[in-house]
Amino acid sequence: MRTVRFEDATGYARTGEWTDDGIVASGKTYDPEEVDVLPPSEPTKIVCQAGGYMDHREESGFDDKPERPELFLKTPNCVVAHGDAIELPPGRDSVEFEAEFGIVIDEQCRAVSEDEAMEYVAGFTCVNDISNRDDQQDERNWVRGKAFDASLPMGPVVATPDEIPDDAALELRLNGETKQETTTEHMIFSVPELVADVSELITLEPGDVIATGTPYGPDELSAGDVVEVEFEGVGVLENRVVER
Amino acid sequence: MRTVRFEDATGYARTGEWTDDGIVASGKTYDPEEVDVLPPSEPTKIVCQAGGYMDHREESGFDDKPERPELFLKTPNCVVAHGDAIELPPGRDSVEFEAEFGIVIDEQCRAVSEDEAMEYVAGFTCVNDISNRDDQQDERNWVRGKAFDASLPMGPVVATPDEIPDDAALELRLNGETKQETTTEHMIFSVPELVADVSELITLEPGDVIATGTPYGPDELSAGDVVEVEFEGVGVLENRVVER
Repeated sequence: MRTVRFEDATGYARTGEWTDDGIVASGKTYDPEEVDVLPPSEPTKIVCQAGGYMDHREESGFDDKPERPELFLKTPNCVVAHGDAIELPPGRDSVEFEAEFGIVIDEQCRAVSEDEAMEYVAGFTCVNDISNRDDQQDERNWVRGKAFDASLPMGPVVATPDEIPDDAALELRLNGETKQETTTEHMIFSVPELVADVSELITLEPGDVIATGTPYGPDELSAGDVVEVEFEGVGVLENRVVER
Repeated sequence: MRTVRFEDATGYARTGEWTDDGIVASGKTYDPEEVDVLPPSEPTKIVCQAGGYMDHREESGFDDKPERPELFLKTPNCVVAHGDAIELPPGRDSVEFEAEFGIVIDEQCRAVSEDEAMEYVAGFTCVNDISNRDDQQDERNWVRGKAFDASLPMGPVVATPDEIPDDAALELRLNGETKQETTTEHMIFSVPELVADVSELITLEPGDVIATGTPYGPDELSAGDVVEVEFEGVGVLENRVVER
């Protein structure tokens, strides 16, 4: 099942199922093009993995598997929905996309084992980890570089794990051209490993997101660009880039 | 005015004024010892400054004033109240206190100037930036090292700016012994400078906290310790340390 949150014509926030026929909610069917899609969850925190695929790790100059995931944080002000604008932070030269998929937490959990991790996962969504390199390269902790407003488009749905094929494809298109492309078999750490690792010291809440990292090829965004992240089984997250 | 959030005997969350006679709410006076004090706000994010005083900066091997504040993040799972336990993260050897005061945001704001910054500040509270050095020293971004559960005691009140003297004292006592001591005149960046800097790229929400950094002398905590942070005009934030 693919669950979407959206605003209907009256401004009421609804939850529905995104089907081939449209968005079905309370017995009505809505045209996805005619509703305002909301972020698929309201995370209290977003825990991100830096570079979760071996190819991105090699691109960054490392060829060994790390002992554990390298983490950083995004904050609720980062979250925007499918269809919302990505605002470029003013006065910065290099702002890049990073295609990822996100794990959406279903139930509060702490210190879960890998074996039980999937019991706490609602499903998966597309995320775009927009990164402000001007600040990131000067920061010990990536705060201005990663946690700025509108730097985490996510959506359009949360797809339950049964919707995702075993070796699911992740792709990013910039103005229609494929720029990043991988499959989940290239992940360094599995979804259960990530949930177990992050939850060891950090209680995860319903709606919280673990952004699982990006493959090779992050690149720059400019105002006017349209950027799409597609994760197989979830669908396409599309956002356009504007000056703030 | 010093505002406190607390649970009364029925479990109802109330907001009151902490006076010399007790906590006054809805015409009743409560004994602070007999209520369960809650965190003074519910931050969606906590933006922290690393080492906001010149003495801590010198202790860390730097003797110049930085160009701008060095930032890192804590998350809502970190927040505990006055009187709550600080849980030591399991299997770690070195967990330290860091006395700070926090700026509590009153109204949503973004890109505010230093001149207008105080219009968006509700007031100040005590915070204790509990730090897990075992992980922090291995992390590029301090996530396991800083954003673990119960790593941000804050409270007991939000004191409005008029309650804070010009050169306010900040002190930390471990089991009654003074371990950190400074005054706000030693701060590298002023409160308006911090609000302006953080809000440039990050929208701040009501209740959000900017933790302003710690002076010299962070040191280790053990189970059974009682740690107090006192910020002049706010009062004393007291927490005991337990094994998780």
